[in-house]
Amino acid sequence: MSRNAVQEYLYTTIFGTETRDGKAFDIALIIIIIASIVVLMAESIGEMQAKYGFWFFTIEWGFTIFFTIEYALRLYCSPAPKAYAKSFYGIVDLLAILPTYLAMLFPGTNYLMAIRLLRVLRIFRVLKLMRYLQESDVLLSALKMSGRKIFIFFYAVIVLVTIFGSLMFVIEGPEHGFTSIPYSIYWAIVTMTTVGYGDLVPQTDVGKALASITMLMGYSIIAVPTGIITAQMGQQLKTQRQATNCPNCSKAGHENDASFCKYCGSDLNAIAKSEE
Amino acid sequence: MSRNAVQEYLYTTIFGTETRDGKAFDIALIIIIIASIVVLMAESIGEMQAKYGFWFFTIEWGFTIFFTIEYALRLYCSPAPKAYAKSFYGIVDLLAILPTYLAMLFPGTNYLMAIRLLRVLRIFRVLKLMRYLQESDVLLSALKMSGRKIFIFFYAVIVLVTIFGSLMFVIEGPEHGFTSIPYSIYWAIVTMTTVGYGDLVPQTDVGKALASITMLMGYSIIAVPTGIITAQMGQQLKTQRQATNCPNCSKAGHENDASFCKYCGSDLNAIAKSEE
Amino acid sequence: MSRNAVQEYLYTTIFGTETRDGKAFDIALIIIIIASIVVLMAESIGEMQAKYGFWFFTIEWGFTIFFTIEYALRLYCSPAPKAYAKSFYGIVDLLAILPTYLAMLFPGTNYLMAIRLLRVLRIFRVLKLMRYLQESDVLLSALKMSGRKIFIFFYAVIVLVTIFGSLMFVIEGPEHGFTSIPYSIYWAIVTMTTVGYGDLVPQTDVGKALASITMLMGYSIIAVPTGIITAQMGQQLKTQRQATNCPNCSKAGHENDASFCKYCGSDLNAIAKSEE
Amino acid sequence: MSRNAVQEYLYTTIFGTETRDGKAFDIALIIIIIASIVVLMAESIGEMQAKYGFWFFTIEWGFTIFFTIEYALRLYCSPAPKAYAKSFYGIVDLLAILPTYLAMLFPGTNYLMAIRLLRVLRIFRVLKLMRYLQESDVLLSALKMSGRKIFIFFYAVIVLVTIFGSLMFVIEGPEHGFTSIPYSIYWAIVTMTTVGYGDLVPQTDVGKALASITMLMGYSIIAVPTGIITAQMGQQLKTQRQATNCPNCSKAGHENDASFCKYCGSDLNAIAKSEE
Repeated sequence: MSRNAVQEYLYTTIFGTETRDGKAFDIALIIIIIASIVVLMAESIGEMQAKYGFWFFTIEWGFTIFFTIEYALRLYCSPAPKAYAKSFYGIVDLLAILPTYLAMLFPGTNYLMAIRLLRVLRIFRVLKLMRYLQESDVLLSALKMSGRKIFIFFYAVIVLVTIFGSLMFVIEGPEHGFTSIPYSIYWAIVTMTTVGYGDLVPQTDVGKALASITMLMGYSIIAVPTGIITAQMGQQLKTQRQATNCPNCSKAGHENDASFCKYCGSDLNAIAKSEE
Repeated sequence: MSRNAVQEYLYTTIFGTETRDGKAFDIALIIIIIASIVVLMAESIGEMQAKYGFWFFTIEWGFTIFFTIEYALRLYCSPAPKAYAKSFYGIVDLLAILPTYLAMLFPGTNYLMAIRLLRVLRIFRVLKLMRYLQESDVLLSALKMSGRKIFIFFYAVIVLVTIFGSLMFVIEGPEHGFTSIPYSIYWAIVTMTTVGYGDLVPQTDVGKALASITMLMGYSIIAVPTGIITAQMGQQLKTQRQATNCPNCSKAGHENDASFCKYCGSDLNAIAKSEE
Repeated sequence: MSRNAVQEYLYTTIFGTETRDGKAFDIALIIIIIASIVVLMAESIGEMQAKYGFWFFTIEWGFTIFFTIEYALRLYCSPAPKAYAKSFYGIVDLLAILPTYLAMLFPGTNYLMAIRLLRVLRIFRVLKLMRYLQESDVLLSALKMSGRKIFIFFYAVIVLVTIFGSLMFVIEGPEHGFTSIPYSIYWAIVTMTTVGYGDLVPQTDVGKALASITMLMGYSIIAVPTGIITAQMGQQLKTQRQATNCPNCSKAGHENDASFCKYCGSDLNAIAKSEE
Repeated sequence: MSRNAVQEYLYTTIFGTETRDGKAFDIALIIIIIASIVVLMAESIGEMQAKYGFWFFTIEWGFTIFFTIEYALRLYCSPAPKAYAKSFYGIVDLLAILPTYLAMLFPGTNYLMAIRLLRVLRIFRVLKLMRYLQESDVLLSALKMSGRKIFIFFYAVIVLVTIFGSLMFVIEGPEHGFTSIPYSIYWAIVTMTTVGYGDLVPQTDVGKALASITMLMGYSIIAVPTGIITAQMGQQLKTQRQATNCPNCSKAGHENDASFCKYCGSDLNAIAKSEE
């Protein structure tokens, strides 16, 4: 807790967004991140790599050294370095610098630094787009509430694609391109999700009939996750409108037709009158 | 404000739909717009262009000159020319004549005049299809209310396709057709939206596994925008029928076809007449 | 109205499903219809046509003559032949026999008799699967209520595919396979509906970028018709539960919390107590 | 009913999950099942089959003999062997051992044992993931309630693909790859479900127009099953929270986290404790 003035200044600048320096730093950071991703994409194009390979290499290391210093400073000035390092942003910040170092051992892995895009999520905080964060909270909480149902749905899909894939392997066999069960399961996923690349299609009549069933099944069961999330989202939207807090226990989240606090039993009417 | 009789007549004819001339003008206009689009499509077919190229050229310029004069007259007779020029229809009207002129500099751009189709939206106003406009208001307001959530969804999709595309570039690489990160992102979009052209498919086993995850993700997260819009649409439909209050007990929530209050039995008609 | 006994007997047998003969006739009819469709499908397979062509020809004419006689008898015995001829089933019954005759003038059109499948819809009535008909009423009325919104959605989709198709024609042009605007619109439909045959794909970078936007748009706006129909279906399901009829005007369709008839204002409570 | 101690011990071990042995047995069983599926997948890969064919054969028979003994023991120790044999798990347990024996007569059918994956469903019971089972009950009951509507939807889809397929056969014909009506129906299913393999695409202009209509139809009617299931799921979620009634005013509809009645302020806890 005995932190010096440098740490304090760095903290308000790097982590904070309230001071002029803090805002300037964050905006500059986001611009640099986007620039580094643009450079990365240009680098991945063969002809440009051939022409400007050396420059890309130099610029990329420049960005990486900058981000490494930034990460070190964040650890240095944070009042709780361990908590930061374990937080979502802390992990993303670390993952964003590793690929360049990793590429020294495994060439090509530097392209994994596309994960830097996640750092741009900070923009919502910087630009005070708090309402956007609130909305994304609604989305995330609806997803979280539906989590178990979605897990069951995925389990059912995996069982279905395994069984359909194995059936197709027996029906079509390696002579029609279905060379193994895992590859047939890949076909079943391509078909059931209605992607339909067409790189592997059934050749026999029985195979086509089974593929038709797979398609119709995939076409219909997409309704299940949609139904789950929609129903949950409807609940969420309803809850969202209940802005009244209990005058006694000040807990929120009461339904629109509630007259008494559901937590402590106090009368809500005094303040609920003007609502919605 | 000192407008002459010609301006007044032109205004009621070109902008208005109430007078006989006004209605005739609008219907003629819509027919001409559709005719110009049909000609445009015929022109785009190579063989027809070879045979009737000169006629297409002449007809197209005829239409464009007609629309140019119409646009000039609209500016001339409008009581507020600037407001018209900046309105949705004003911009569309201008964009609808520009491509032909532009084609003198950049051959081929005349096909952009397909945007004229937007002018046909006027048909709803002309044919007094007000109920259709009301319905589209419900749709648009549901979309507007969901705007922020949809923005977040798109941001998430863009982050996902960038990360999956980059991963795929590292896994498959140029030797399997994934020649650059932008092209790999294009693959990720084709896969995640379940379009699945099949012009670029993973060749390696790891690539196929990652593609399977991408497909299952795209197959499921489509549920999110659907959930958002459905929940909002449900709210909208509810609000639509909450508009009438009983004159006696002032309770709301009556159905559109209700003549009597369902709570106290009073006659709703006195005020419900003008509704919807 | 002066109908003879033969007409009466034929009417109860052919149209009715209550008598033993009526039920037997309807079940036999459905079996014959399905048999005729199975023959049609077998006939369409080249090798079988080569082998058994004559038999198929004979059997098909046998079925058609049977159905023609049946149609004539229906007209003869119906108490209101015109009303029957104009009804849904009357039109389907006629369309089901025309293709064979038409095939004498235009060979190949006999395959259009697949429309006979619609006649099998009668099975719901025969097997007293009334609950199924009720359920399909819920579906149809939800679709009808959403009709205007869906019309607007389709208009918007048509405007979008026309504009995107034209843009793609300008960008890619005939040298990359986009030979005309109508064909480019076909591409836009294939892409926006996420079908993605892959028979026509963009070759240029700008084209791929535009295709990506088209895909993301098609991927998202599917949420709109889903939202429309789901919201309407939710309303419908709610309405369905209101089985109470008004004791005074005997109109149904009251909401669950209604105490008074919304049509005549009578007290519903006397009978509504035990409901649901 | 006169069962001996061995039967009793086997019953609590094999069927039960409460005793230490019972839990150990179930977990071991699930590991063995997953191992047998992994071996099956490895076996299906040509090169691995060539190298380790004998080992795969031996291991597979080992697993099958183990599962056969297990099935026999289940029949032996169950207090109601017939009820077990007819239950869902009983049938799955039998189907899981048949393919290996069947493969002696029909080589290749041993891959059908992928159905063993269904046995892993037991994991939910073993790991006391009861909440997951409850959630899947909500899903299943929503599906069951929507059963009739979904049946009608599928019937409509089958009628549509048959008619569109037949039309396409007449329009395109064998010279463009549409070699028979059943194959054209396969095309219609591939198109309407938006899978779009692209192995069979229309060549003529009329065919492309019809394909466009098929795609737009498939793109829109997916909204119908989604609407059905979503509406039902919404009802289900609502019912779930309607379970508690206030002990004082007996009004229902309280949220799951409510401690006090929102209408009269009474304590709900007395009866709400055991809920959900």
